[in-house]
Amino acid sequence: MKHIQIINGPNLNLLGKREPIVYGYQTFDTYLVQLKAQFPEVELMYYQSNMEGEIINKLHETGFSTDAIIINGGAYTHTSIAIADAIRSITVPVVEVHISNVFKRETFRHHSFLSEVCKGCIVGFGMDSYRLAIEAVLEF
Amino acid sequence: MKHIQIINGPNLNLLGKREPIVYGYQTFDTYLVQLKAQFPEVELMYYQSNMEGEIINKLHETGFSTDAIIINGGAYTHTSIAIADAIRSITVPVVEVHISNVFKRETFRHHSFLSEVCKGCIVGFGMDSYRLAIEAVLEF
Amino acid sequence: MKHIQIINGPNLNLLGKREPIVYGYQTFDTYLVQLKAQFPEVELMYYQSNMEGEIINKLHETGFSTDAIIINGGAYTHTSIAIADAIRSITVPVVEVHISNVFKRETFRHHSFLSEVCKGCIVGFGMDSYRLAIEAVLEF
Amino acid sequence: MKHIQIINGPNLNLLGKREPIVYGYQTFDTYLVQLKAQFPEVELMYYQSNMEGEIINKLHETGFSTDAIIINGGAYTHTSIAIADAIRSITVPVVEVHISNVFKRETFRHHSFLSEVCKGCIVGFGMDSYRLAIEAVLEF
Amino acid sequence: MKHIQIINGPNLNLLGKREPIVYGYQTFDTYLVQLKAQFPEVELMYYQSNMEGEIINKLHETGFSTDAIIINGGAYTHTSIAIADAIRSITVPVVEVHISNVFKRETFRHHSFLSEVCKGCIVGFGMDSYRLAIEAVLEF
Amino acid sequence: MKHIQIINGPNLNLLGKREPIVYGYQTFDTYLVQLKAQFPEVELMYYQSNMEGEIINKLHETGFSTDAIIINGGAYTHTSIAIADAIRSITVPVVEVHISNVFKRETFRHHSFLSEVCKGCIVGFGMDSYRLAIEAVLEF
Amino acid sequence: MKHIQIINGPNLNLLGKREPIVYGYQTFDTYLVQLKAQFPEVELMYYQSNMEGEIINKLHETGFSTDAIIINGGAYTHTSIAIADAIRSITVPVVEVHISNVFKRETFRHHSFLSEVCKGCIVGFGMDSYRLAIEAVLEF
Amino acid sequence: MKHIQIINGPNLNLLGKREPIVYGYQTFDTYLVQLKAQFPEVELMYYQSNMEGEIINKLHETGFSTDAIIINGGAYTHTSIAIADAIRSITVPVVEVHISNVFKRETFRHHSFLSEVCKGCIVGFGMDSYRLAIEAVLEF
Amino acid sequence: MKHIQIINGPNLNLLGKREPIVYGYQTFDTYLVQLKAQFPEVELMYYQSNMEGEIINKLHETGFSTDAIIINGGAYTHTSIAIADAIRSITVPVVEVHISNVFKRETFRHHSFLSEVCKGCIVGFGMDSYRLAIEAVLEF
Amino acid sequence: MKHIQIINGPNLNLLGKREPIVYGYQTFDTYLVQLKAQFPEVELMYYQSNMEGEIINKLHETGFSTDAIIINGGAYTHTSIAIADAIRSITVPVVEVHISNVFKRETFRHHSFLSEVCKGCIVGFGMDSYRLAIEAVLEF
Amino acid sequence: MKHIQIINGPNLNLLGKREPIVYGYQTFDTYLVQLKAQFPEVELMYYQSNMEGEIINKLHETGFSTDAIIINGGAYTHTSIAIADAIRSITVPVVEVHISNVFKRETFRHHSFLSEVCKGCIVGFGMDSYRLAIEAVLEF
Amino acid sequence: MKHIQIINGPNLNLLGKREPIVYGYQTFDTYLVQLKAQFPEVELMYYQSNMEGEIINKLHETGFSTDAIIINGGAYTHTSIAIADAIRSITVPVVEVHISNVFKRETFRHHSFLSEVCKGCIVGFGMDSYRLAIEAVLEF
Repeated sequence: MKHIQIINGPNLNLLGKREPIVYGYQTFDTYLVQLKAQFPEVELMYYQSNMEGEIINKLHETGFSTDAIIINGGAYTHTSIAIADAIRSITVPVVEVHISNVFKRETFRHHSFLSEVCKGCIVGFGMDSYRLAIEAVLEF
Repeated sequence: MKHIQIINGPNLNLLGKREPIVYGYQTFDTYLVQLKAQFPEVELMYYQSNMEGEIINKLHETGFSTDAIIINGGAYTHTSIAIADAIRSITVPVVEVHISNVFKRETFRHHSFLSEVCKGCIVGFGMDSYRLAIEAVLEF
Repeated sequence: MKHIQIINGPNLNLLGKREPIVYGYQTFDTYLVQLKAQFPEVELMYYQSNMEGEIINKLHETGFSTDAIIINGGAYTHTSIAIADAIRSITVPVVEVHISNVFKRETFRHHSFLSEVCKGCIVGFGMDSYRLAIEAVLEF
Repeated sequence: MKHIQIINGPNLNLLGKREPIVYGYQTFDTYLVQLKAQFPEVELMYYQSNMEGEIINKLHETGFSTDAIIINGGAYTHTSIAIADAIRSITVPVVEVHISNVFKRETFRHHSFLSEVCKGCIVGFGMDSYRLAIEAVLEF
Repeated sequence: MKHIQIINGPNLNLLGKREPIVYGYQTFDTYLVQLKAQFPEVELMYYQSNMEGEIINKLHETGFSTDAIIINGGAYTHTSIAIADAIRSITVPVVEVHISNVFKRETFRHHSFLSEVCKGCIVGFGMDSYRLAIEAVLEF
Repeated sequence: MKHIQIINGPNLNLLGKREPIVYGYQTFDTYLVQLKAQFPEVELMYYQSNMEGEIINKLHETGFSTDAIIINGGAYTHTSIAIADAIRSITVPVVEVHISNVFKRETFRHHSFLSEVCKGCIVGFGMDSYRLAIEAVLEF
Repeated sequence: MKHIQIINGPNLNLLGKREPIVYGYQTFDTYLVQLKAQFPEVELMYYQSNMEGEIINKLHETGFSTDAIIINGGAYTHTSIAIADAIRSITVPVVEVHISNVFKRETFRHHSFLSEVCKGCIVGFGMDSYRLAIEAVLEF
Repeated sequence: MKHIQIINGPNLNLLGKREPIVYGYQTFDTYLVQLKAQFPEVELMYYQSNMEGEIINKLHETGFSTDAIIINGGAYTHTSIAIADAIRSITVPVVEVHISNVFKRETFRHHSFLSEVCKGCIVGFGMDSYRLAIEAVLEF
Repeated sequence: MKHIQIINGPNLNLLGKREPIVYGYQTFDTYLVQLKAQFPEVELMYYQSNMEGEIINKLHETGFSTDAIIINGGAYTHTSIAIADAIRSITVPVVEVHISNVFKRETFRHHSFLSEVCKGCIVGFGMDSYRLAIEAVLEF
Repeated sequence: MKHIQIINGPNLNLLGKREPIVYGYQTFDTYLVQLKAQFPEVELMYYQSNMEGEIINKLHETGFSTDAIIINGGAYTHTSIAIADAIRSITVPVVEVHISNVFKRETFRHHSFLSEVCKGCIVGFGMDSYRLAIEAVLEF
Repeated sequence: MKHIQIINGPNLNLLGKREPIVYGYQTFDTYLVQLKAQFPEVELMYYQSNMEGEIINKLHETGFSTDAIIINGGAYTHTSIAIADAIRSITVPVVEVHISNVFKRETFRHHSFLSEVCKGCIVGFGMDSYRLAIEAVLEF
Repeated sequence: MKHIQIINGPNLNLLGKREPIVYGYQTFDTYLVQLKAQFPEVELMYYQSNMEGEIINKLHETGFSTDAIIINGGAYTHTSIAIADAIRSITVPVVEVHISNVFKRETFRHHSFLSEVCKGCIVGFGMDSYRLAIEAVLEF
């Protein structure tokens, strides 16, 4: 059985409520139930925080013992060298996901400090980006 | 009765103590008493944090139910896409204020990630910037 | 009694007519009547010109004798070092106002040569920006 | 039955032979056999060209009638506005894939003209990026 | 009788079909019939290719013997030094045309490698840009 | 009968006298006589000023009542957001013209603030640029 | 007898009054009297305007008939391509002067559009810069 | 007796475990014991946090009463204006240290927001950088 | 006997005809005869194409079996990551040549995507650059 | 009697021989004789070196005891922070001169590290720039 | 016994005399006596030159035989790739020191070509920076 | 008999000793013997200096009388406008050589101030670059 940690960054607790034209009407909790049903052979753990430092803590905590981490860094994607350094510091492979296609949006969302330290990136498939990330991890 | 949330960002807990040539000798608590007296018809709530994530949490908490938010993002003004995203995510109008005229200071203080997601900005009138923001909100 | 000079720059003579989605449907003259009524204790003088040099002349003329100047530089905000130098040259405090939130618009409107030489800036509250500027001046 | 066109750009005919440390030792033809076996319910069509214009032609030809296009633009990813315009011109959804994690490589590989006109991007999972793209398409 | 070669670059074969809000609903073939009718005294030759190299070949072939070339480089306008060099290499005067006003569009469409080697540019008049180019050529 | 206003910007009163290698030996007045003769069905009005503000005034004056405006902004093309804003503020379509091919000249002449607010641009055909602009207008 | 036109740009009418730490306490009129006394063999004509267009007009008016023009463009030095074009258009040699050493001041004062079209530049000697310019002209 | 506060930023809790080729195999706790032994006359206090805001809090708490602060900002060095503002706000002198030579690493590590507000910087001597900082402080 | 492939890029088929002041009056065919005569012990193969993709094809075809490739990428030198990738993909050493000294020409000719993947570069010796490249290859 | 040191930088020993179209046909020695004759009341000392360090030494040697230094830094003007620091370090006022109008030449000649540390600059009057500098010094 | 070479760059011979507000009132010679007294077990050799090339020579001369070199490159720190190359070329470890905190000064002093080739950097502790460098070396 | 001066810049005296992975194990003196043997009909003169100014002097001394100069500017290649000016000032043709392929190395080595003033450049063939330069010169 694979153990996969999903980490969602700032403002992603508002999914379903926040700018639904960009992010859709579904909450992440509802989606998570579906996702777990789709992958009964995987233990999915979920964590969300608006705190940069707490995300780093969670990466340290799970980054040496799980099979993979799937991270949607939210806005910290574009500003946090510290989260990127945390990913550099751990040994578990990390997959970066984004719900929206960040390359269609403001220029400051086109650069990610995380991409170069992650195994791969999945961008723009809505909530389905998380499922694809799990699909990817199952092949590692 | 209008409900207005004031949010002060990092280092603003040191007002009156920190670089008084730039920020003046008055603490924010003293000023707040005055401000409440000036607007008896307004319920003013005050929050200060040095934590980017806690500011996001407070925006989420009050951003769907108050009448307006007045934010002085401190240094996060210039670096936090995550706070800007939080403002994008909520429905309450937000007014940006600064005590000092940031445009007279270092270049890295000239750009604000918050300005483009706020209703308007009031910059450089010392503590009085907060009063003007309330004046503005009362006309919304 | 306080004497305040309002100076409006290029194209602001078309207010009410020009891009009403951005600037609203009210002419400045109509608004001025209201504004005067709101501040009976202030002598409000109004000047508009599409000429960079005439705005400089007016700043020279009123910049040593009134109590304050409120300027909306229009497009010259972003290109005129000469108007900024005129403000540097005079002794009366100047407040910069903008009707629209310039930070939500084209990048070339994000930089103002005037901000760093003004006392403070009020941006994005529609016509109400002028009232707030007077409120600010009354506290000087 | 879904019809999916895969388009590979310049130098990808050398897969298995070219810089194997970056791209692996498998040829695309071998991989394609596997891929077809994995998705018996999908009609997979494959095209590779080193010619920018031929890739445009293929997009025009298949971009109004298939169910989806999966494109690995190779180096044209970073230089071709013309291919991006072709994707803009067609009606079929397009998914961008890359074998290597382009964000770990030279700076000139960090910008893609294609990303902003594609539905989504899958980057860095080796050959498996193509399988994930099909997985994504099956959810459209 | 004047001999004028019209060269259309990538994706312009899709005119009438491609992003009609930007480029209109008329195919170039239909328009060409009209254009020939308007200028009975001119021999109009037409060539379209999605291949950068074929456009260069056509410039070489017709660039020493016709009276003028009218080129709409499509997306190659913004990326092809090679086409610009081909224009530099030939002796026939070249007029650059664009259907849409490229200056209202993405920043990467604001720079043209062709403009500085063409005689003149006509931009933004829809299909009518081609007629105006012929009008211009008739005065050479 | 169509009413078309031609507006020429700074230094264009010196045509025929100023840098004739770049601008030719003909004065604009001589040319205007020819132009009027060529279009007897059009009422052509002509205005030249070296004053940025006067050009704005003329745009305001004629920008709601004529059929079209043809503007050669001279050097203000490259520096005047205020003239661009005036064009944005009026309802009559505007065509930008340049006598010389500005793209062959100094880099600071390659960017025009006017292009993105005009209907279209005609650049580099000498005096004939004005005739082509009228030709274009007659098709509006 | 040499005829020399001095042209002063915006805000220079405030000399003696404006930022005296930078520009000194003497008015230009007082200085001019001195200057004329020092060069009895020269006819010195003086013109000041805050209007960019009027400075252009004066350059046109005197630029074909005097022996030299001495220009202090004030802030227009850094923004006016139109004044630079006017200098390009005339035949009389022009000398650029500045009272303060502009290179010790804000970065936006380090670039001059006028320098490259003037014969030479004299910068930073206070009012004495004008005398040195006359000295220079007498050697032409 | 001198009281010195050491503050370590994000990911430095992983020292000895994280990228040992860059940071070495020793944990900070082990090193601290050694350091305390070397300076028996100094009271060394140690704090580590992955939270930007907590680092600010600690600076506020100790920044008015200790003799000096030694800070290794980790990745926040390169992104945090807020920590730099906290250092500006306190009165105790601060010394910046880095274990690795940041100038040999990625470009985004070459700029420090902290350097300009610290007394001095010690970079690249491995763990020994902390000892050198204490040596420096003892001379203040 | 050494086998050397020469590849010439776009517009080089016009040598002798194209901008002779820059490139000289000799055709490449004439020169090639001379070159072959000078190196009887070398088998020289020649290929020219205006097509980026065909150049890539030729590199693939000859890049694993000849002794060396000499490439003059023409304008593709400055824009083609795809050709550079093709050179990266093959095993034969490649020498870059240019007839003119590209560093004396337009800025956009100063950067070459090919230089960093070639063994060495020979620039500016006219046709003789090819001979020098062969001289170089003979020492490999 | 005033003591003035003239310092000429690299390649100025070739005056009269070097690019005479730019610098004229006169050697500096011939000119110096003339200059001394014009200012019998001044002791003029002359030094030329192609060595950056020797120019610094000469500035140190004469920078505390003469009345003024006139420096033409030649190409070091544009690259030498060390010479600028030497000027900062001494107490004698320094005047910067250039023979040619550097602003008409290559972009890399437009910036001077020396200008901001000199009293003033005289640029573009040929050899006469030196005489004007002495004229300026006599007024200090 | 350790042998350490100290090398001081341009203008550092003026220490005690040059801008004492920045660099203090002590000459380096006086300081050196103190320093030698503090480290009786170290042989300290001292060299200063204003010549870039002589510093390179000294690095070559001592860079293969001493135990360490301590360099204060003065202004060459910011411009000299040649000194950086000399450090790259030798085998002795080098420590970079600065007396003032260069990061508090002009922008052009923020970048050092030397930092990335030195072992470590000590910046801003006044003369004490040299002592700290020796302390560091003793641990190598 | 041809007279050719070879000039080597800073750190090239360490060839054979300096970073042998980049520059090889052979000293230049050994190589020079070989080179002279290969070209008995050429008089080869050799000069090396670490002093920018001495290289300028040598260019002045030999730049009017030899047949050609071959220069490897070392690190001065990338910073010295003064050496470039010296080459501009002389009449003898100059060939630039580099041992390593500078385009494969740090970005600051990609720009050469010398290239645009030399006849041609030979880069990356190890020591053999010098032989190729002589080969080139023999064809002048």
